[in-house]
Amino acid sequence: MSPCRLITLLTDFGLQDSYVAVMKGVIAGINPQIPVIDLTHQIPPQAIALARFHLLTAFPYFPPGTVHVGVVDPGVGSQRRAIAVELVEGSVLVGPDNGVFGGVIQQYPVKAVVTLTNPAYWRVAEPSATFHGRDIFAPVAAHVASGVPLSALGEPIAAQRLIDLDLPGWQATSTGVMGVVQAIDQFGNLITNIPAIALQGQSWQVLWRDQIIPRATTYSDVPPGCLVALIGSHGWLEIACHRGNAAQQLKAVWGDTITVTWQTSG
Amino acid sequence: MSPCRLITLLTDFGLQDSYVAVMKGVIAGINPQIPVIDLTHQIPPQAIALARFHLLTAFPYFPPGTVHVGVVDPGVGSQRRAIAVELVEGSVLVGPDNGVFGGVIQQYPVKAVVTLTNPAYWRVAEPSATFHGRDIFAPVAAHVASGVPLSALGEPIAAQRLIDLDLPGWQATSTGVMGVVQAIDQFGNLITNIPAIALQGQSWQVLWRDQIIPRATTYSDVPPGCLVALIGSHGWLEIACHRGNAAQQLKAVWGDTITVTWQTSG
Amino acid sequence: MSPCRLITLLTDFGLQDSYVAVMKGVIAGINPQIPVIDLTHQIPPQAIALARFHLLTAFPYFPPGTVHVGVVDPGVGSQRRAIAVELVEGSVLVGPDNGVFGGVIQQYPVKAVVTLTNPAYWRVAEPSATFHGRDIFAPVAAHVASGVPLSALGEPIAAQRLIDLDLPGWQATSTGVMGVVQAIDQFGNLITNIPAIALQGQSWQVLWRDQIIPRATTYSDVPPGCLVALIGSHGWLEIACHRGNAAQQLKAVWGDTITVTWQTSG
Repeated sequence: MSPCRLITLLTDFGLQDSYVAVMKGVIAGINPQIPVIDLTHQIPPQAIALARFHLLTAFPYFPPGTVHVGVVDPGVGSQRRAIAVELVEGSVLVGPDNGVFGGVIQQYPVKAVVTLTNPAYWRVAEPSATFHGRDIFAPVAAHVASGVPLSALGEPIAAQRLIDLDLPGWQATSTGVMGVVQAIDQFGNLITNIPAIALQGQSWQVLWRDQIIPRATTYSDVPPGCLVALIGSHGWLEIACHRGNAAQQLKAVWGDTITVTWQTSG
Repeated sequence: MSPCRLITLLTDFGLQDSYVAVMKGVIAGINPQIPVIDLTHQIPPQAIALARFHLLTAFPYFPPGTVHVGVVDPGVGSQRRAIAVELVEGSVLVGPDNGVFGGVIQQYPVKAVVTLTNPAYWRVAEPSATFHGRDIFAPVAAHVASGVPLSALGEPIAAQRLIDLDLPGWQATSTGVMGVVQAIDQFGNLITNIPAIALQGQSWQVLWRDQIIPRATTYSDVPPGCLVALIGSHGWLEIACHRGNAAQQLKAVWGDTITVTWQTSG
Repeated sequence: MSPCRLITLLTDFGLQDSYVAVMKGVIAGINPQIPVIDLTHQIPPQAIALARFHLLTAFPYFPPGTVHVGVVDPGVGSQRRAIAVELVEGSVLVGPDNGVFGGVIQQYPVKAVVTLTNPAYWRVAEPSATFHGRDIFAPVAAHVASGVPLSALGEPIAAQRLIDLDLPGWQATSTGVMGVVQAIDQFGNLITNIPAIALQGQSWQVLWRDQIIPRATTYSDVPPGCLVALIGSHGWLEIACHRGNAAQQLKAVWGDTITVTWQTSG
């Protein structure tokens, strides 16, 4: 086992600039042994809801003890809090308190939360007003990954006080369930917010506007170019097109409504 | 030397989603010491031939013993086989049996092939129907990189039974050779499938439609904006534009025909 | 501390091809323990000035001793020199002598410069004419990171002989200072070449064509959608749009002129 914990980085910085590299340089300067994995840096600017989705989706596949840094931070330099959240399972979340961690926190019990007020663990005592990823979040994460306890980083606050987004949920209807498209991936797959458990034990089909989309287990269960509804690898209902792009074919966008109806005989 | 082997990842997952990060999280959960290098994740969706090209092109530059994971997998969840291929030189290829490994296997002798049927080396005994990169290929690669022998992973099969693509070859003509554009790189360079050896000992020139493209050794042998034909760094005939973009200038696309003619005096 | 030094890679290779991976494979083949960080690979083809900007911007955040490889190299295979530059603070720059390192060299004292003429530290004695990143710069960097001294790599030359770009500077005017946009980042922020020190002790405002852009400390000091001028995290004057894209709003491009005027009472 490595002597130090893994760090993941999730930002809206893109890869064309050197902002991400700078965060990695700061981490390496504190502890060059820390492995760093890019979660993704291609969140559209300030798209907190999408960052929240990706962290929630990827979280279960990282070892307990991982330090996840999430910097999609339109309020940088304002009064918004900087936080670290330790989960009972051992992982730590580091970033601005703006909802990026909301999905994970809803599903995994929280052990402790602190505000990052102790400049001893920042890069410099007077951080830039516009790049806390470099000056606060990367160095704090590197110290946590190297063994610094949360209690050293700043003042404890109650988990209940953390900010979350007010996102549309899925809901039961008289004939099935309704939800929305919460993400569209690189393949044009529409990932809804309807969890597998909402469909369990039912015979169901998806209605997209006036179109019935057949249910299957995997993409190749339908001919190339055809639409298919299935439970995606992340555990949500997904609409895909075998060897095609469902988002383009359906002209779907983030937030579009999805209707699932129970199938009745006859 | 590192106690464990290097893993490379080649996918069509792109970098906007967290799919690649999830594979790295799974690997780190099995063995956090394994170094992981991204070959590329920007293969267009399901473009097996291009993935095959990139793996073949990059392969010689990795140390023997590297574990190369190639997941461009339109048939995920279907009856297509999951395989691991051990080469005589020591490297191992892990992914679906669909031709991505065909170029490497044609050029490097195979020691053993197995189908990945032993769930003891998967992430979970019941893998998702749509993300074998996460549930089968990444964990198998991590175990191989940590020392698990191929024989433990599943049933041996004959290398002759592996699937390859039926790609157009280059061919000798009465006046030279003909081939096709097998890749277009970031610079707009047209990489043909005509190997240096096909041109050896000849005085040659390239014909593109009605245009003669002069031969040179490097880009700057011609003035800025001019086209040039040369043997690229990968060993294939390449058409480039000095400080410009040959693909745009020639409106060339994947699969376009390239004609080379021997030059005769007079 | 790691037994070997960190390498960073800065290129115009993009991430769609396997060129970057090949450089990493070569490094791993020489010393698999070396940590490698991508500075950025999305420099537009041959954009030396932008590569120079990114290296200068990122440099201060990497630990002393880091080996920075910069390969934006339109003159590859020509008579342009290949160099390694050791700085007094301990870091080493490796790449073509074409100005990419000019910004760093202007700000950090140089200890020694050599031309990379000793093929003992190349990948092969006869390098490709078109990919010195793979055949010369990556292997030389890996050897330097592993402890090979500069003096072994080739002949010493004077730092004064190194090439730099002739870039527009900022200048004092009778009413303030003038400069240019030297980079536009992923968020559409306009990063000028006017350093904080040029504005120190003054009450200033930015004029963009006929428009006054108000001064603030951070993005959220102005309402969403509004323009703001501030000292960016890199220490240059920057024009941004809170939760928007200043470059798009102002139709700004690289090299546009920025005027700062001192504010007078009345």
